[in-house]
Amino acid sequence: MEKITSRENAKVKYACRLASSGAFRRAEGRFLAEGRKLCPELCRGAELETLFCTESALEKCPELSELPGEHYLVEDHVADKLADVGTHQGVFGVFRTPVHTLEEVKTGGRYLALERVQDPGNVGTLLRSAAAFGFDGVLLSDGCASVFAPKTLRASMGAAVRIPVIEAGKLPEAIALLRGKGITCLAAALYQSQPLSAAASGYPDGVCVVIGSEGQGLTDETIAACTGTVRIPMTDRVESLNAGIAGSILLWHFREESL
Amino acid sequence: MEKITSRENAKVKYACRLASSGAFRRAEGRFLAEGRKLCPELCRGAELETLFCTESALEKCPELSELPGEHYLVEDHVADKLADVGTHQGVFGVFRTPVHTLEEVKTGGRYLALERVQDPGNVGTLLRSAAAFGFDGVLLSDGCASVFAPKTLRASMGAAVRIPVIEAGKLPEAIALLRGKGITCLAAALYQSQPLSAAASGYPDGVCVVIGSEGQGLTDETIAACTGTVRIPMTDRVESLNAGIAGSILLWHFREESL
Repeated sequence: MEKITSRENAKVKYACRLASSGAFRRAEGRFLAEGRKLCPELCRGAELETLFCTESALEKCPELSELPGEHYLVEDHVADKLADVGTHQGVFGVFRTPVHTLEEVKTGGRYLALERVQDPGNVGTLLRSAAAFGFDGVLLSDGCASVFAPKTLRASMGAAVRIPVIEAGKLPEAIALLRGKGITCLAAALYQSQPLSAAASGYPDGVCVVIGSEGQGLTDETIAACTGTVRIPMTDRVESLNAGIAGSILLWHFREESL
Repeated sequence: MEKITSRENAKVKYACRLASSGAFRRAEGRFLAEGRKLCPELCRGAELETLFCTESALEKCPELSELPGEHYLVEDHVADKLADVGTHQGVFGVFRTPVHTLEEVKTGGRYLALERVQDPGNVGTLLRSAAAFGFDGVLLSDGCASVFAPKTLRASMGAAVRIPVIEAGKLPEAIALLRGKGITCLAAALYQSQPLSAAASGYPDGVCVVIGSEGQGLTDETIAACTGTVRIPMTDRVESLNAGIAGSILLWHFREESL
């Protein structure tokens, strides 16, 4: 296996640029992931093109050599450059980004739509919960944390490629499109909303749960575009729930019937 | 207001020791919290003894001066010492730790028990969800993250003093005590368990949700001590849910009836 010893290697620089720039990821249709467990997991739903491993990582996990794509050994100081955080496991993969569009949205499906959810941890967590509870896709508005950024990938634990992710631009227009297909769109909103316990959980023509940013919640335009609103009722002992938690409870409520 | 200019001030050193040592917190029955929003929030459920503020924090939030206790201005370099992380808001409070014991557990109540949940973020999140959903108390086994450590306090957003927290030692014994009071104790376990959807949500004599550590789950002894087991059913697209998420969904299922 060829060994890369220079941090200036073109393939390494390309991978680093994928990790740091959302625009570059979009233009290239590729992303970089890190992790001994995450990279094999991502292979279940995305094409691995290039794998970079340190010698010690390959010793610990010889099965990494069975993964597809071009493989390179990298020296530790090169691995340090590929990593976005100080601690890493010495395993990095360049993957093709699966591309999905609004046209795939279908009557009877189950969707999650996020509006300007900026925290990568929350976006990753919600992807993981949506995949766990049998959702058919996730719509992301402009301004959401990038699904294929290193932090989000870690939080989603690979779910990013196990559920279709659709860049949906402005949500009110996307929601109008979903409603045109008969899908009930429910906005998560604290005020003037019905408690979740009162919301039906089965929607034969489909349902879309719409969740806003941690600080501001949904825009008025997006709430107005939805079919109705729901909230998670709480005691007055807390002011709010964490966005990942609140969203996951909604997803659980609207889960696939067989679960 | 007296101004503290030295990092060697005895009150400052005492506060720092509360932040860094669980044993010292327990011995003293006090804890240190940081945050412009968190300190006033904690006053709703714990006695504030000493408040340290930087001048700029007090200018931004003059209402801090209305809080109870002794108040001190601190210079920025003293505030940096009081903070456990690099970024802080210049507001620190020494509070009396509310003390609760197993004797307070009552038939008909709703409880959460955690066994060796080590991540402070998960413990804090679960406290917040338990308070939100009307639980009457949280039991912590040996080996759980300390509820009154700075990280856990931040994650719980003050919920740590809005719901009784009980140090319960070894869970099997605590669970036997709860069952003696007629409380149904349900262990969260992935295998040989009933799906959550099949579990009743109302328990007139009380219910306790029992959750284990992120990596290992519950010990066999604790599962055996419980009345039954539950799991959150999932598709095979993910391996697991985040512990804070899974626990919060369980808490939502067993929430106070009025919610």
